[in-house]
Amino acid sequence: MHQIIQCVPNFSEGRDLEKIDKIVAPFRGKAGVKLLDYSNDEDHNRVVVTVVGEREALKAAVVEAVGIASQLIDMTKHEGQHPRMGATDVIPFIPIKNATMEECVALSKEVASLIYDKFAVPSFLYEKSASASTRENLANVRKGQFEGMAEKIKAPEWTPDFGTTIHPTAGITAIGARMPLVAFNVNLNTNDLEIANKIAKNVRHLSGGLRYCKALGIALEERGIVQISMNMTDFTKTPLYRAFELIRIEAQRYGVSIVGSEIIGLVPMDALIATSEYYLGIEEFSYEQVLEKRIME
Amino acid sequence: MHQIIQCVPNFSEGRDLEKIDKIVAPFRGKAGVKLLDYSNDEDHNRVVVTVVGEREALKAAVVEAVGIASQLIDMTKHEGQHPRMGATDVIPFIPIKNATMEECVALSKEVASLIYDKFAVPSFLYEKSASASTRENLANVRKGQFEGMAEKIKAPEWTPDFGTTIHPTAGITAIGARMPLVAFNVNLNTNDLEIANKIAKNVRHLSGGLRYCKALGIALEERGIVQISMNMTDFTKTPLYRAFELIRIEAQRYGVSIVGSEIIGLVPMDALIATSEYYLGIEEFSYEQVLEKRIME
Repeated sequence: MHQIIQCVPNFSEGRDLEKIDKIVAPFRGKAGVKLLDYSNDEDHNRVVVTVVGEREALKAAVVEAVGIASQLIDMTKHEGQHPRMGATDVIPFIPIKNATMEECVALSKEVASLIYDKFAVPSFLYEKSASASTRENLANVRKGQFEGMAEKIKAPEWTPDFGTTIHPTAGITAIGARMPLVAFNVNLNTNDLEIANKIAKNVRHLSGGLRYCKALGIALEERGIVQISMNMTDFTKTPLYRAFELIRIEAQRYGVSIVGSEIIGLVPMDALIATSEYYLGIEEFSYEQVLEKRIME
Repeated sequence: MHQIIQCVPNFSEGRDLEKIDKIVAPFRGKAGVKLLDYSNDEDHNRVVVTVVGEREALKAAVVEAVGIASQLIDMTKHEGQHPRMGATDVIPFIPIKNATMEECVALSKEVASLIYDKFAVPSFLYEKSASASTRENLANVRKGQFEGMAEKIKAPEWTPDFGTTIHPTAGITAIGARMPLVAFNVNLNTNDLEIANKIAKNVRHLSGGLRYCKALGIALEERGIVQISMNMTDFTKTPLYRAFELIRIEAQRYGVSIVGSEIIGLVPMDALIATSEYYLGIEEFSYEQVLEKRIME
């Protein structure tokens, strides 16, 4: 693949494996599209698909999957723990290689237009594609969920970006472009959740910390320790090591140490290369020097 | 490419660009072979080619290039600063992905057999392919160089592994399998070369240091500092961070600090992933979590 755009569509079906298989089918065996992973959660009643591809091939596959989901999933009967507002709940596009954020924004709008024209599925544009700053945050956009959407969109500030009415069974979809997320968790040698919460507050953007870091403290009860659970929302600007070292420094005042970390799901290679560059103090390193990068060119 | 074997053949022509182009030609535009880089050095009168490929395609391309080099290069007229013994001086094969060391050893022997059958170019097997421990080290094998080889191979311990006489103009070639080398240099904030040499002695295998580390101290005269210049000969067993941290510890006794490092040439992604795992203390990380690794599968 010359170009790599990642897409992580979430569909509101996590229990019926036959339906899930049909929804995922458009991502299989196509030139220019590669299905990397999909995992369904029965409690959430949701499947998260990870796919990469070139722009046109990816667009066609995503639109096809949205069409299938809108036929197979009836949101009036959907139950699950995860907030949701549509059969296809959210479609983020992420630039990975030879693709710009602007291109992903354009792609998100094309998909939004196509799924309304073809399937009458309306959408909100969110994140970098948002038409207003109040629509950037997915949680804001989705507030009210499927059941509250028909009412919510009557307010002028919540008119959908594409479409004017909620699809009766498929609801509404959030579509947008964003940077890759890295789920990065740091473990501390204490069972005091209050300490974890204080440190999380100190490192996260919301309460005065790092610009591209969301964080909260959670208890790992089986291990008897706590964790700073983070979403790094732009690792190119807030690198992993900076959050890690800041947690170390904040933990010192409580006499607490870092005992490990974990990365959940996929991480772009560049995030790890940047980590090595920092800790080894590598001067003038070019990512072209990484053998696999060169091979992928 | 399903399988990736790297090959870094060195040819004894670094000045005539037309000849270099002909020698490199077999690595271009072939399915299952990808030319990553080649760089010629006029002082060394040598070109170093970096290519990756699948076993059969790579074998055919390498053999073809050896044939062309043996026609174009006349070692009786060769001058250059770098030690050399053949038109094709050395051919290392390196397992990168879905290839074992054993497979690379077998491949090296097949190539050795073919180039003798086709072009009457004899060879020594070296590194992991060596038929005796005295032949593992390339410097030992090449000692005497082209001019001394006809005499050297008269000794029973230096009978070539393939062939019985030196090719009159193409000399003899060293062929073998080895781990990828990482050229990793660490800079110190002193101009005292003696300190660099002491630290190099402490970290390198030869004089009691790390098993897969070669090191020497060199002066970076323009910058007024010194450097520990290392070849990491198996980064999977002696990782980069271990050498780096050991240099830091050894430097402390001289009141000296590390001020940076550099990686010369290509480095396998796994070497950098391992670095991130160490410094961030990442638990249970799978290389399958690296997006680009997943895409390459």
